[in-house]
Order: sequence, then C-alpha cells, then structure tokens
Amino acid sequence: MASIPTSTRAWIVANYPKGLATFTTSDDKNATFKLVERPLPALGPEQVLVKTLFLSNDPAQRVSIESSISPERLYRPPVELNAAMGSSGLGEVIASTASSLPQGTIVFAPLDWTEYAVLDAASCQPRNPLPNGLSLTHYLGAFGGPGLTAYYGLVVVGEAQRGMRVVVSGAAGATGSMVVQIAKNIVGCSQVIGIAGTDDKCRWVESLGADICLNYRSATFEEDLVKATDGFVDLYFDNVGGHILDLMLARLKRNGVSVACGSISAYNSQEPTVLKNYFQVITMRLSIRGFIVLDYLAKAKETLEIFVRAVQDGKLKISNDNEQVVATKFEDVPRTWLRLFEGANTGKLVTKLI
Amino acid sequence: MASIPTSTRAWIVANYPKGLATFTTSDDKNATFKLVERPLPALGPEQVLVKTLFLSNDPAQRVSIESSISPERLYRPPVELNAAMGSSGLGEVIASTASSLPQGTIVFAPLDWTEYAVLDAASCQPRNPLPNGLSLTHYLGAFGGPGLTAYYGLVVVGEAQRGMRVVVSGAAGATGSMVVQIAKNIVGCSQVIGIAGTDDKCRWVESLGADICLNYRSATFEEDLVKATDGFVDLYFDNVGGHILDLMLARLKRNGVSVACGSISAYNSQEPTVLKNYFQVITMRLSIRGFIVLDYLAKAKETLEIFVRAVQDGKLKISNDNEQVVATKFEDVPRTWLRLFEGANTGKLVTKLI
Repeated sequence: MASIPTSTRAWIVANYPKGLATFTTSDDKNATFKLVERPLPALGPEQVLVKTLFLSNDPAQRVSIESSISPERLYRPPVELNAAMGSSGLGEVIASTASSLPQGTIVFAPLDWTEYAVLDAASCQPRNPLPNGLSLTHYLGAFGGPGLTAYYGLVVVGEAQRGMRVVVSGAAGATGSMVVQIAKNIVGCSQVIGIAGTDDKCRWVESLGADICLNYRSATFEEDLVKATDGFVDLYFDNVGGHILDLMLARLKRNGVSVACGSISAYNSQEPTVLKNYFQVITMRLSIRGFIVLDYLAKAKETLEIFVRAVQDGKLKISNDNEQVVATKFEDVPRTWLRLFEGANTGKLVTKLI
Repeated sequence: MASIPTSTRAWIVANYPKGLATFTTSDDKNATFKLVERPLPALGPEQVLVKTLFLSNDPAQRVSIESSISPERLYRPPVELNAAMGSSGLGEVIASTASSLPQGTIVFAPLDWTEYAVLDAASCQPRNPLPNGLSLTHYLGAFGGPGLTAYYGLVVVGEAQRGMRVVVSGAAGATGSMVVQIAKNIVGCSQVIGIAGTDDKCRWVESLGADICLNYRSATFEEDLVKATDGFVDLYFDNVGGHILDLMLARLKRNGVSVACGSISAYNSQEPTVLKNYFQVITMRLSIRGFIVLDYLAKAKETLEIFVRAVQDGKLKISNDNEQVVATKFEDVPRTWLRLFEGANTGKLVTKLI
C-alpha cells in the first residue's frame, strides 16, 4: 500500500482579480492564484482522503473570486483569500473511515484546486459507469451541473413548449450544447438557433440538432441574427449577457422570455451591461428570469434518468465531442481553466490531472 | 344652439424628436409639434362630435413619437407624421348620431390634441359622477389608466402579497402614488418605500401611506436607499428605469421581482440603460417583468369597483392632491405635457382646456 500523503499542493486565491485572473508558481505578489504546499489534516470519523482525478471548469467559478459584488449577493460564499480555489470534480478514495465509501471508490465531490483533499464522506457521491461506454467525466458535463442547468433553465424557468422558437447563446458550451439538444429533441421546439464564437463550433452545434448556428464574431452577425429570427422568437437562453442579450431583447416576441443563466461576457470585465433595447422589455411585455441550478436539484435524479433514456433513444448525442478533456499538470490547472474565457472550448472543458 | 364647428385646431406631429420634444405655433421647420387648423369630417352614422374638455398627460405618449424603435416593437402604432398627437381625455358630446350618447354626455374618449373630434360612438365611454364629490378628471388618473396600471402591475404582474416589502419609483406620479396606497392599504404590504424627485413630493407620498420616501436628487440618496432597504425587499415597482433600476437590482431579495412599468428616465434620451448590477439578476434569481396595462383591461370594471369601495373605506386617499389640473390654452397643450419630463407634477397631470 502506497504511503498516505500528509500534504498537498494547492492553488490558492492570493488576490481577487480586477479583470482576467492570473497565476504564479513563484512569488508574483499580484497574481490571482498562487501555487503552495499545504498540510492535510488527519482523517476524522466518516471522512475520506480523495485524490483528484478530474476537475470541472465552470465560468461561474469566476464569480466566487469577484470582489466587486457583496458576498451576500452571491449564491455561494466567495473563496476566501489564501484558501484553495473552489471547484468540483471526480476523485478516487485512497483512504477512508467511512464504510459507505471504501478505498478505490470513484466519487463526485466538492474538490478544490488541490491534488488531495480530506472530505466528509457525506459530501461525496459515488459515481457508477455511464451507459454506452461514456466516460465518467460526463458526470461533470451533460450528466452534471451543465446538463441540469440546461434542462431546468429551459423547461422550468423558461417554460419551453413544443413548437416554440428558441435562441441559445454560448451554444457550443457545456450548458448551451445541452440546451440545443433538449430544446430540439426532448421538448420538441420547432426551431433552435444557436450562437457561438467560431464557424467550427457553429457546425458542431448544428450537428447536435440546431437548425442554424450563428458566429457572433462574423461581420454580418447582427444582420444574420435578425434574418434567422424573422417573425421573432419565444425564448432566449442567455449564457453570455452583454451585447447579445441587448440584441435579443429586440428579437423576442410579445411575452417572450430571456432565461438569465450566465453572463460570461461580463465575468472578467468591469464594464456594465449596456442595454439599448431595455425599453422593449416593457413594450413587448418581456421577462428576464435569473436562476441558479442549485435551487432545482431536488429532482436531479429523475432528470438524469430522462437524460439516460434520451441517450439510449438517440435523442441526446453525448460523446467525446461533448467534452474537451485537457490533460493538465497540476502546475497548469489555472491555465486550463482560463481557456473558458478565451472561447477555446467546445462542450464541457474538463481538466484531467496528470 | 351654437353652430357646429367644421374645423378644429390641432397639434400635429411635424417631426419625430431626437431628445426632448419641442413645439411651435409659427413655422419652425424643426419643431416636433406644430399648431394647425384642420377640417372636421361630417358626422356619419353612430358618430359623435366631441369637444375636448380635459386631456390626459402620460409619459408613455412619448413612446408613440419615438422613431428609434421599430413600430412592430411598440404596443400601439406610433403617431404618423402630420397626424394629430395622440392622447386620451374627457369631452362633451356636442352633436351626435348615436342614440346611446346624446348631446351633453360627458365621455372618456381617445381624444388627440384637438379642440374638437369626430369619433365613433363605440370608442367613447360615458362617465358618471364619482363618489365623495371627486372631480371627473380622476377618470384620467386614479380611476383610469394610472390606477389600473398600479393595481395590475403590483398585484398581478408583481404578485404582491401581504407582508412584503415594496419599493416604488416615480412614487409621486399618477401611477406611483396609487402603487403606494394599493400596496399599503389594499394588499397589506408591511413596508412601502417611495422614491421621488423633491422633498415636497416625498412628504406627500408619505402622507399617502408610504413608510418613507427618498428624494433621488439628494446627495445621500444611494446611502439612504441602502439603509431603507436593509435586509432587502421583495418587490420593486419601476416607473423610471435607468440608474435607479440598477441600484434596485442590488436591493432585491433572492427571487425578488422588478415590475417594469415605465422608463421615464430614458424617454427623451438616446442613452442606453446601463446596469452595473445586471449579474445579480442571476445570482439572486431576480426577475424583471415588463407589462402593459392594455393586456389586463378585461377586469377593469371590477377593479374600479374595488377602488370605489376603498375610497369609501378610507383606504385610498383620492383628493385634489392626487391630481394636478393645469388650466391651459390650446396653444400651450404641449407645454403642459412637457411638465411630465421636468418632474414638475405631483400626482396625475391633467390639462384643462380653457
């Protein structure tokens, strides 16, 4: 039996960033993230020592290091300075005092950016193999937070119905790529229009079932959007906020809904959201509905069963294309996470620790 | 019997304004409104000739001469160039071919800015005296569009409940002053916080039942608002949009609602709505709900009966203080209307033609 580690490397939050986060493995005093070595506590009763295998990368993690928003206005506490950066992921139990989670169990857990962690067994959920030979990492994407976010945002918050016309931004992202498929193949929307940041992403989104996907970096994007939404649309699933939200306020039908899921355009910026079309919220009786998936998890098990059946019926295309697993040395954990904000990922971005 | 007029003076829309509207009684080519004389058509069957007595002044009229919004995105067609400016008001039937509306009847009608109008009798509603000796002009305010807007916005759109904490902007306006009273005395909200533009207006709003009213022109307004909304509020009834909306996004409780009723701060401006706090729509699961009172008029009669009972029970304070009736020569109709945008009125602003 390998010796049990008594310390771990950890990426801590040394400073809250003003714009894009930075990181250092040496002693840059201004960097957001700093690599350090930290002691691990001894295992208490009903605890496990987990070795991190995969880390989830989520745009919303940026919010937990945003100092311009008062902590009481966030949906979870911000990461404290000098604490390890928060995340979640899949790990292997390498030591345990909990009979429910013996050594060798693979768990989904609130793993921070550390190589090892001592956690309460109650906070860890064992994960069984997925159908169709899908990698366990899909528990971080289609069968995890992003998939559930897509489902509840679309079906519960947005009240999507068969026959509706839907626009989804961030359509090639972990959540957006699920919104496209759920809208088209589970809800039965009549038209699904994606918005993404490269032509390649757009073609991929169309391969998932979108009727069309528009590249917001195209010089003709605004005209393309007007044309694609001729006659106006019922629902906008907003992963990006900012300028595209503003454009969409002018493209929603009377009583249309914008589901406010994310605002990635603003996550690394001090720029406010500038809405030239806000007045159409009134004239067209629009609603903008913010939501957080955490409020809807009571039914997560049933929803994941819907997903499994949909995969088996061919209604959800979940494959290695739906995620991008980046083999990453621990020293490069922040670098991989920052790819989220470069628009570099197609589908879920997963860090595989090597 | 006086002779029947065959023409009328009319304020026509000569140009759509870029910012604040202007008006001319001579031949300024750039003015928004121009005074002209127009022939009146002969009465057809079931028509009435109405003499305008009182004109309603509503911020939303500005929208109908706004050329930057595509007409299909407005809730009623814009006023065409060279047509009389649209409004509504109270008039006296001075000639009639409709037995339902004999000469001498006082009607609420879609009166434009004209001294006389030939209208279909079906578009005119006779108005009986109000209880408690209230002037008929309250049919343009508390017992008209503004009162109904306040009620449906608060109770139906905003789902206001007994015990909630509510903030109302434009609280000294025709709609806001009704929101304050309905919230406090009909719905039973536990706290009603008004926002208005002068200390005098604030004291008046407090006399209507607001627990406190804050002057947004005060140097300490932002601090005052944070203090008054300590612990956060459930509902924001937004008559003004812009900066106050932005501040309120940071003062709503989780699952709080902003009822988007008006955006007077933007009506005469090309400036967009700038929201520094938009992200809190997501983190705090807020919703912003646009509405137009026209969608809720099926139950208007019942609602006005609620108001009449509330006046009799002392729960609604409707008096001459709730309106500002400005005796106006026809040449000055636009001038009186423009007072809306100077923040000059307390309660409903009514033009009485002299």
